[in-house]
Amino acid sequence: MRRRGDVLERAILDATLVQLGAAGWKGLTIEGVAARAQTGKAAVYRRWASKAALVEDALRAGVPPLETQPDRGSLRADLTEFCRALRDRMYSSGGQALRAVLDECDREQAEQFHEVVMGQIIEPGKELIAELLRRGVERGDVRPEVNGDLVLDVLPAMMMYRHKTTGRDLSDEDMDEMVDQVMVPLLHTR
Amino acid sequence: MRRRGDVLERAILDATLVQLGAAGWKGLTIEGVAARAQTGKAAVYRRWASKAALVEDALRAGVPPLETQPDRGSLRADLTEFCRALRDRMYSSGGQALRAVLDECDREQAEQFHEVVMGQIIEPGKELIAELLRRGVERGDVRPEVNGDLVLDVLPAMMMYRHKTTGRDLSDEDMDEMVDQVMVPLLHTR
Repeated sequence: MRRRGDVLERAILDATLVQLGAAGWKGLTIEGVAARAQTGKAAVYRRWASKAALVEDALRAGVPPLETQPDRGSLRADLTEFCRALRDRMYSSGGQALRAVLDECDREQAEQFHEVVMGQIIEPGKELIAELLRRGVERGDVRPEVNGDLVLDVLPAMMMYRHKTTGRDLSDEDMDEMVDQVMVPLLHTR
Repeated sequence: MRRRGDVLERAILDATLVQLGAAGWKGLTIEGVAARAQTGKAAVYRRWASKAALVEDALRAGVPPLETQPDRGSLRADLTEFCRALRDRMYSSGGQALRAVLDECDREQAEQFHEVVMGQIIEPGKELIAELLRRGVERGDVRPEVNGDLVLDVLPAMMMYRHKTTGRDLSDEDMDEMVDQVMVPLLHTR
């Protein structure tokens, strides 16, 4: 059947994410994407001038920004909830595609996607944790003197590192340990 | 000139590290390694049955375990020294090769190298940080109640994450910030 433009575009972007997750950046081909989207190369090239442009749009569309969370009443509960949300994104087709790009791209390519990665993932995640901390300071269970951007990186960094070094998906226990052994001691009022 | 066995073996292992760092695991070929080591494929296959076996030996030989550090007199100084040492290894030919393998390998391949990665890098690094903490507890500037394995992951995780997300090499300032904003608040006695 002939699909309307926006439907076909969505199919191409979805196919791009799946191909990225499976074959990675180097393994991704326009042919492969077109085949998976059940269209032709011409339909892809009509919309995107290059593989990089296609991947950039697919990542933008495939990794929606994290949403702000309702107050769970404690630092520990807020952070646990954040970990669950971040893990869901890590293991979504968009998240897998994004990790493939982050992992595989050489420096020049990484530069090209740096803005997408920062804008779609890193910065929104930091902003969300910063909000949890502001909330905790008001509530009284986060130390007001906590400062610096780097505390906002700790959870995402630990999750990426643990995923890589264990070679398995993160479990609820992994994330509870990160919160209890690292984040609560680092941030909680004494 | 004809090289003695151990000299040729060393040349092949070095060539493997350089190829890994440049081309990654998927891009590495026995032909490429042999060419760079100025020998033939047969000389490589005579010693290693597979690409995986070659890479495993190259990583073992190319990433010597971190050495224990002299006491620098304070938690901050000990951690700063540790960061410098870890960064030097990250950016060595062995470290680049190892990161290429960690980043690029799919799950099955990662399984294959998991033991090398853990044994050569992750575990020795954890043990070294654990020693710094024991030392700090005796000295009195590390909280005795710090517990759990995960605090030992924080610095390596932050360094890997920051390297990836900034897309540039880690600076002294990056590492000083990690120590001052995260590690000291997490570990130092109050």
